[in-house]
Amino acid sequence: MTGPGSAKAAGALQSIWLRPDEEAVCILDQRYLPFRLVIEELPGLQAVCEAIRDMHLRGAPLIGVAAGYGMYLACKEARGLPARRASASIEEAARKLAATRPTAVNLAWAVRRQLQAIAGVQDPEERVRAALATARGIEAEDIECCRRIGEHGLALIEGVYAGKRERVNVLTHCNAGWLACVRHGTASAPIYAAHRAGLPVHVWVDETRPRNQGSRLTAWELAQAGVEHTVIADNTGGHLMQHGLVDLVIVGADRATRRGDVANKIGTYLKALAARDNGVPFYAALPSSTIDWSLDDGLAEIPIEERDARELRVVEGWQAEGLAEVLVSSPASPAVNFAFDVTPARLVTGLITERGICAASEQGLRSLFPAGGQA
Amino acid sequence: MTGPGSAKAAGALQSIWLRPDEEAVCILDQRYLPFRLVIEELPGLQAVCEAIRDMHLRGAPLIGVAAGYGMYLACKEARGLPARRASASIEEAARKLAATRPTAVNLAWAVRRQLQAIAGVQDPEERVRAALATARGIEAEDIECCRRIGEHGLALIEGVYAGKRERVNVLTHCNAGWLACVRHGTASAPIYAAHRAGLPVHVWVDETRPRNQGSRLTAWELAQAGVEHTVIADNTGGHLMQHGLVDLVIVGADRATRRGDVANKIGTYLKALAARDNGVPFYAALPSSTIDWSLDDGLAEIPIEERDARELRVVEGWQAEGLAEVLVSSPASPAVNFAFDVTPARLVTGLITERGICAASEQGLRSLFPAGGQA
Repeated sequence: MTGPGSAKAAGALQSIWLRPDEEAVCILDQRYLPFRLVIEELPGLQAVCEAIRDMHLRGAPLIGVAAGYGMYLACKEARGLPARRASASIEEAARKLAATRPTAVNLAWAVRRQLQAIAGVQDPEERVRAALATARGIEAEDIECCRRIGEHGLALIEGVYAGKRERVNVLTHCNAGWLACVRHGTASAPIYAAHRAGLPVHVWVDETRPRNQGSRLTAWELAQAGVEHTVIADNTGGHLMQHGLVDLVIVGADRATRRGDVANKIGTYLKALAARDNGVPFYAALPSSTIDWSLDDGLAEIPIEERDARELRVVEGWQAEGLAEVLVSSPASPAVNFAFDVTPARLVTGLITERGICAASEQGLRSLFPAGGQA
Repeated sequence: MTGPGSAKAAGALQSIWLRPDEEAVCILDQRYLPFRLVIEELPGLQAVCEAIRDMHLRGAPLIGVAAGYGMYLACKEARGLPARRASASIEEAARKLAATRPTAVNLAWAVRRQLQAIAGVQDPEERVRAALATARGIEAEDIECCRRIGEHGLALIEGVYAGKRERVNVLTHCNAGWLACVRHGTASAPIYAAHRAGLPVHVWVDETRPRNQGSRLTAWELAQAGVEHTVIADNTGGHLMQHGLVDLVIVGADRATRRGDVANKIGTYLKALAARDNGVPFYAALPSSTIDWSLDDGLAEIPIEERDARELRVVEGWQAEGLAEVLVSSPASPAVNFAFDVTPARLVTGLITERGICAASEQGLRSLFPAGGQA
């Protein structure tokens, strides 16, 4: 569905919401962004599974929230069944959901949390209410976590502005905005907070090959919010930093180790090197759920997903009235498509978390999270 | 024209040649590479001008050679005219050629060289012969220069192989192959020399956004020559170096200063930083004509061309049976498209020139070129 309804979602700057009648979950079908704003209503578990599997939505936090609502819809669907069949049906729903994107940590976590929440609940209606409360809780926690990251990160942008008294230039890579979460985003949260606070902020948006999440999603988000921005090739950030055109780099993180090594979209490491070479502060914004306290050396210990080379060899974009693909690589040439890289803590100026900003080190992280993964 | 004729050009690995009857210049129309091999015959000055202006061919050395042949064809066309009109016609041809790509240094240089060669020649037939000899001379010099760069650079690859005794991995950025020259290329010349010498060499090919000269031209060249290679996103090189998968970086150069700062396709600097951070040698291969002895500090003194943002926002590739374009950027978002960046000499392990390899410093360059730009 496109059209008038679009304004609501865009105005809300929210990637997922429960329909007021509580009968369906609504999402933006991100496959069509930034070319068409398509709101999709997911009326049941099956639709949620398909939306996650076929990447109508993406971003670890958002997938977690969607899975939470998926479990709620599964409980609703099981409401009329005899007790034993209802249980089996809900367990089957949990398996189905967890299998949609097997590597997504937040997905499995949200499903487990729902199973725990409804574990002792026998009454079908009560179970639906419990699942709904849990889904809403996961959503609310994500919003609050991102909001806090925005507040803490805002201080960095304010600091640059205080010294410069003119436009603050932030460079970001990939999409760590509200399209990957529910609202605010992680790396984008400080930018939105600064914009709301009336600070003149301009964002250099790495297009982020091969999937172009920067030029497609981050650029669209920023345009929606009225934040000044410019799309650049991933090759460009170093040149900009050499010429004093970047004040701050803020990226997201897919995973961080306890010593502060950060895995993020491939190419992040190159920007961290350029930032270091030019004295530009480099921050990663991340909810503490992203920290893997069991890992120390990110380069040695974080496995890097290798995705289909087709994503590199063929580019998808908009043509006439639809999505289309063009081959951009020599047909006889192989390609390889590593999805992430690891930026060592030594290149990271600091980590922006929901509890504040800390040094990218075990000491830094433990100053905010004394119990590590236990709290 | 495609089809059987294609084998000849591909087999010759040469980007431009005079037709045996000396009545036309033949080129590969590079706009269709790597999807179609189109050989274009340029029968006169006008066709040469269009081919340069509309980028049927590109690469500074190749443009220079094409301009040399363009002047030859102009002399041939003026052969039947009265003396004064012939002179005016040739001068007009020189102006037309020089205006096709105003910033190409080799273009203006080749045209001047032709004007000098025919300056005192009154006899029309003799003038045509002089222009042909000059054009052939420019072509032969470029081939010989690239051949020598290949021989000198080969020693680097041999050195890595001697220590490793297994596949040597070279990373390159953009296209500095024979498609940019006549034969061999600059950055590609050592790779081809190693391949001919039977060394196991594998090339990581940066796709080189926004125009994809890597995935389109370099990958095609390497496939034609049977050199093992893999196309990667520009974001990927750092990750590969972190994991010991790159032994050597060799790039071309559009311009170098006397102290060894190197301007090359945007993104080169980021690879130089990653090479330094991981102890990977980083070389620029360049004919000495690329050295601008009047410049010292590349960052401050080399102007960086800003090209049309459309090149970034729209991707051209192959679709069904023709070239097609897709929009890959948020329609409401501006983009900026800097074409080159400068890699400071401190990050350059050495320069591979036609006279040998030297340190990226004024002392290094003067050890090979004592007279600077005067010899």
